[in-house]
Order: sequence, then C-alpha cells, then structure tokens
Amino acid sequence: MSVPLAVSPLALPFPVLPAIGGARLAAGMAGIRYQGRTDLVLAEFAAGTAVAGVFTANRCPGAPVDWCRAALPGGTARALVVNAGNANVFTGRAGVASTGETASAAALLGGCLPSEVFIASTGVIGEVLQHARIVNALPALHAALDGEAWEDAARGIMTTDTFAKGATRTARIGGTEIRINGIAKGSGMIAPDMATMLCFIATDAALPAPVLQALLAAGVDRSFNCTTVDSDTSTSDTVLLFATGSAGNAPVADAADPALAGFAQALDDLLLDLALKVVRDGEGASKLVRIDVTGAISAASARRVALAVANSPLVKTAIAGEDANWGRIVMAVGKSGEPADRDRLSVGIGGTWMARDGAVVPGYDEAPVVAHVKGFEVGIAIDLGLGSGTGTAWTCDLTHGYIDINASYRS
Amino acid sequence: MSVPLAVSPLALPFPVLPAIGGARLAAGMAGIRYQGRTDLVLAEFAAGTAVAGVFTANRCPGAPVDWCRAALPGGTARALVVNAGNANVFTGRAGVASTGETASAAALLGGCLPSEVFIASTGVIGEVLQHARIVNALPALHAALDGEAWEDAARGIMTTDTFAKGATRTARIGGTEIRINGIAKGSGMIAPDMATMLCFIATDAALPAPVLQALLAAGVDRSFNCTTVDSDTSTSDTVLLFATGSAGNAPVADAADPALAGFAQALDDLLLDLALKVVRDGEGASKLVRIDVTGAISAASARRVALAVANSPLVKTAIAGEDANWGRIVMAVGKSGEPADRDRLSVGIGGTWMARDGAVVPGYDEAPVVAHVKGFEVGIAIDLGLGSGTGTAWTCDLTHGYIDINASYRS
Repeated sequence: MSVPLAVSPLALPFPVLPAIGGARLAAGMAGIRYQGRTDLVLAEFAAGTAVAGVFTANRCPGAPVDWCRAALPGGTARALVVNAGNANVFTGRAGVASTGETASAAALLGGCLPSEVFIASTGVIGEVLQHARIVNALPALHAALDGEAWEDAARGIMTTDTFAKGATRTARIGGTEIRINGIAKGSGMIAPDMATMLCFIATDAALPAPVLQALLAAGVDRSFNCTTVDSDTSTSDTVLLFATGSAGNAPVADAADPALAGFAQALDDLLLDLALKVVRDGEGASKLVRIDVTGAISAASARRVALAVANSPLVKTAIAGEDANWGRIVMAVGKSGEPADRDRLSVGIGGTWMARDGAVVPGYDEAPVVAHVKGFEVGIAIDLGLGSGTGTAWTCDLTHGYIDINASYRS
Repeated sequence: MSVPLAVSPLALPFPVLPAIGGARLAAGMAGIRYQGRTDLVLAEFAAGTAVAGVFTANRCPGAPVDWCRAALPGGTARALVVNAGNANVFTGRAGVASTGETASAAALLGGCLPSEVFIASTGVIGEVLQHARIVNALPALHAALDGEAWEDAARGIMTTDTFAKGATRTARIGGTEIRINGIAKGSGMIAPDMATMLCFIATDAALPAPVLQALLAAGVDRSFNCTTVDSDTSTSDTVLLFATGSAGNAPVADAADPALAGFAQALDDLLLDLALKVVRDGEGASKLVRIDVTGAISAASARRVALAVANSPLVKTAIAGEDANWGRIVMAVGKSGEPADRDRLSVGIGGTWMARDGAVVPGYDEAPVVAHVKGFEVGIAIDLGLGSGTGTAWTCDLTHGYIDINASYRS
C-alpha cells in the first residue's frame, strides 16, 4: 500500500492494557513487505502456559494454520510468532518449510520445543514468505520482550487495519483476580468461520487446555462468528488463547464449573469487543450495523437470517447511502432461505417499526429513522413472528472505500 | 432516478426479433414511477396458448409472483401485464388487490379469464402500486398491440437496466420451423434462484404445458441459475414461457422426446444469451467474468465452487482493478465449503495456469494474464484435481458504479 488509508470514522482508541504475569511481547521490523513499520511480533509465555485455538473453516488454509492445528493437541505454548504482509498461504512446500524454520528459530531462542511455538501470518496470498527475514529479526525481538508491549504488538500485526485493536477485562476465579488481555487485527475478508482475522488473548488464569478450548469455542461463536464485513472467509483466521497460570487461582477442571462463570463472561465480552473493533475497521466502513432478529423458529435460524441481511450488498449500500430501505431488508430476509412468512414479518430501523405484518406501517414517523441512519451506528430490528428464536449479527456498510482498497490491494 | 445511468460498456445491440404467430405486444406510459418513458407492457396470446413458469426462491415474494403461481396450474395464458417502477412487494392486502384488479382489467380487454392473465412487477419494494394507473393505461396498449413490438416491450420493463435485452432462435420440431423470442430485464439483485430479473419468452411451437415446464426448468437451471451479480435474490424473479401453437408442429407429449432435442437446445441457448445480457448489465459492471470449474467431485459441487468465486467481493473487486489476484480465487474456493484439496488445486486466468498443485507456477508468463484482465471478458479456470465434476458460473466485477447506483436508488 503506497498511500496510507484514512483512519476509520468508527475507530476507537487503544485502551490501557496491563501486564499479564507470565507473558511478554515485542514488535519489530522484519521488512517482509512494508517499509518503515513493524511487521513482526514475538510473544513469550511462562513454562506451563496452556493454549486453546480456533481456526478458519476455509478449505484452503495457510501453512501457519496447519502448523497451529498440529501443535494444539500438545496443550502447551511457550512462544507466538506473528508476521504481517505475507499470509504464507498457497505457498506449497516452501510455505511448510517457512513455518518449520520460524518455529525452530523461536524455540531455540526460548528454550522450548518447536511444537510449543505458535505461528500466524497475514497479508498477501500466494507469495513465498522469506522466512530468513523473520529468523534474522527474532533475536532482537527476543531481547526486547516486555510485559507492557501490548499496543506495539497490536500495531505490528496490522495489514489494511486503520487502527490498533485491543481489549482488557478482569474477572475472579474463586477469590483470585484474573486479568485477560487481547489484541486483534482484521479489516477485509471478514466473515463468520471466521475472518482475515487474527486474535491473540492472554490471561494469567491457571486453567487446563481443554477448559480453555471449550470457553474459547463458545466465546468465538458468540462474537467473531456473528460478524461479517464482506462475506469472504480468510485462509488464515486464527484465535489463540494463552493461559499462563501466574495468577495462581484454585484449580478448575470443568468449563461448566460455576466458579468459571465470571471468567467466561469476561472472556465472551472481550471477544465481542475485539470482534466489533474489527467490524468498525471494515474496509471502507462508515457505519457499524447491528441486526437483531426475533421471532425465528430457533436461535440458529435467527442468526442465519441476521447474517443474510448483514451480507446483502444491497442492504449495505443502502445504509452507506443513509437510505432506510426496509424493502431491501425484506428481500434479504427472504433470500436467507430460513422459514419466514412475509405477512407476519416486521422490520424496524433505529427503534421505529417501518413495516409490520406484511406491509408498511401507515403514517410511521420517518424523521427519527432518517436521523438514525445518518449516525455512525445503525440498528436494524427484524421480527419474524414465528417463534421465540433470537439472534444478532454485526456488519458495516459497503462504500466506495471498500472498492478503493480492494481494487488496488497489490498495486 | 434523476440522472440516467451510462450504458454498460458490456452492452450488446438489440437483435432483430421476428414476429411470433399468435403473440402481439405493446408498451406504453402509465406514469407509475418514471416520467417520459414507457413503464407498462401488455402482451396478448392466441387462444390455446400454453404457459410455463419459474419463480424466485425468495421467501418473501411479491404479490405478482403469488398470482402467477396460482394461475400456472391452469396451463393456459391469454395475456401478460408487466410494469416497471414498482415491484408490488411487501404491500399487504393492497398488493393482492392490485394484482387482482389488473388481471380483471386485462381479462376484460382480452375476453379471457383473469386466471389466464399473468402479471409481473419490478421496481421499488414496499410502496403500494397504484393499479388504477395500470388499469387506465391498458386500453390504449390493447389498441396498439403489434407482433413486431419486441424491442418496445424490452424497453418498457427496464428499471436500472442500461440497455434493452432480447434474443431470438429458430429450431425444428419434426419438419416444422419454430421461432422463439425472449426479452429480459435485470441489473441488480441478481443471483441464482434467480435474480431481480424478469424474462418473457414466446414461441410458436405447439407444446403442452407440462412439456414446456420441464424444458423451461432445465434451461433456467443451466442459465440464470449459473449467474450472479451481487448474490442478492429478488422477491420478484419470474421467467414465463408462452407457446402459442401457431407453427402447427406435430404433437409431442414428452419433454424427453428426441423430436424436441433441437427445440430444447435452442431454448437453452436463448436463455443463456438473455442471462448473460443481464450479467453484462450488472449494476456498475465493467467486465463479464466466466468461471469454469473442473475436477470437482460432482457437477453440483463444481457449480457451488464456481458461484462462491463469482460471489466473492474480493475476487470481484480484484477484477475491477485488473489485478490477476489468484490468491483471492484460492480463498473463495476454500470458503465454498465444498471438497477441495489446497495441494491439488490449480488456478488459471485467461488460459494461463498461474497456480498449480498448491503453489504458484514458477516463472509463469504474466504478460498474457495482465493483457487478458484488461479486456472486457475475463475467464477464470479452476481445477480441483479431485474428480470429473465440471460447472460454470458467470458474474461481473464489483466497481464504484455498483455503489453509486445502490447507495442512492431511492433518492
């Protein structure tokens, strides 16, 4: 990218992230693709750190996703290496070798096994990743590891992102205070299951890997998997959760243990915070759109309806044009293929029901609707009138900015 | 629309359509939405005309679709009324009344039953259609019916279309020469099952309604259902096929009768011709894109992969930017969810294989690829390397023009 992108009008400031015991980070410049900015991040975790991961459903994943999937059953992590600028996807044997060499180099620095090193790459697809640049840059990053470097790390993994994304929460397990920090990147190729999206979370909780995995999978399903920017599913989507154990909480062996209720809530909340920051940075986004579906025959059906609306180019362009075009919403509900009865369907925007029971609401007040769609956040409500299933999806509008960014990404 | 749209660079001239015995048409101005242009079309068919129809899969169809579905089992048609500017969708009881009144008025003029009148409407959703304007305009159209008025009819049904779409074919049934004419409209909200797309075909063949229905369903599946502009499925999609019987061919009772092979081929060919004209007029389209998938585990799987690529905003914006970005094609193959093996996958553009067996083809010649993507027609080839299933989809690129049109449609 030769011209820096304007910061999203929906950007939020990077919050203050405290140190997490047992986790240190550093970012540096490896010159993989970008000039004059950091593009490589190393994280180091204390011995005994447990790990969980959720990955893209794309059938053509990158070599780093294969690497992490293979490493995950080990349950422990000591290091994380992330580069931006090259996704190491569709790079054949060279790509496989690249992840192996990177893991070996990080393992040597960290005094651990290569299988305890997790790897993620994001950027261009199909170009061989020059792992020598990573390997050569790692020692300086290792020397600079710092428990406070969360924002640096968040900046180092950005691609077309226009702002760094981070979140932090606290919770209690038993009487022990737990910290959770997360960073994420993602802007385009964002869709459920999951997104060109990388998300790394660290907590000082002491929890075994299977418990972490259950909590993470549930949380991702309620957050990232309810968001979409452009319906395209990346080959590199990765969410990793590292638990260093330094908080020293009492052991918990079951994800359903009531002692974990607060932690699970805090994790869910942090994941949704990060997921919505990714949507706020959707390529070209000028509005954040929330779609709430009620009255569906099931929660799963409600979500599919919400995502059909969220993925409709005609709905998204209407919102970009500040047009409260509920007709296009009706169309998108109908195209979802989910059970829907045109004559029981209601559609509202910004709290005003515009269409109800199969027809426009006579004399509804357009003024608050017009004012609402001019704002940065647009809420769409759809009641199907069939059952009690509810679901929510989030997306952004589809603007000229999306075309600008994606019709010239490689140039 | 206050500003006329520039004609698509992919537009094709309207061909010369001969008269079809037993079919007459007229277009006129009813003032439904547009000023200074025709927006209402009436067609009259001879007694004994058989009819077949295929309609949108959208769960929230317009009242005219309901009307046609109810009329279709009768198997005979004497008139067709089509208006542009208002889709009569999500208009409740008023919409149902509107179709009934329109059919009654046309039946009175034509001396037939209302259930022999077929109705289609296209345009804005959710506004009550003032059917009095149609009813008042119909007598003048009836007086002007003309066997040669095909292009007038094609123009009268346009909405955001930038050129009129027609096609004609001839075939033989037994020793009798048969004519087939078709017109179509559609530009946005175009996706399989089917499109904001109306298509009306008339032939002088003498064929019973069940035979017509079988041939039409098969032909639509091989044409309109392989095309997509923006993945959005209209509430109004309608394809109707009228067979007047005036050619006087020998009776045929079975769609699989070898005597129909030539007619079926000509009908398929005409449907694909019209479907591709709709894609060529895709909102904002600057390039026609054909995606051929081979090596899939089945034909159905191949088509789903082709459509996943055709619907990918990232692929479509890359083509708009004349960027031979095969990495995004790999992503779209993977997101289809169909069986695919990254390491057996090959991707080519314009006849040059750029990626093969999971990696870039070393030293492939970029020059012909770069030249190809600068043209008006772009061909993408994907070989999955798994089986013998093949499939094809057609789409257009995603440009600033799409945003321009759809972010201001109602203004």
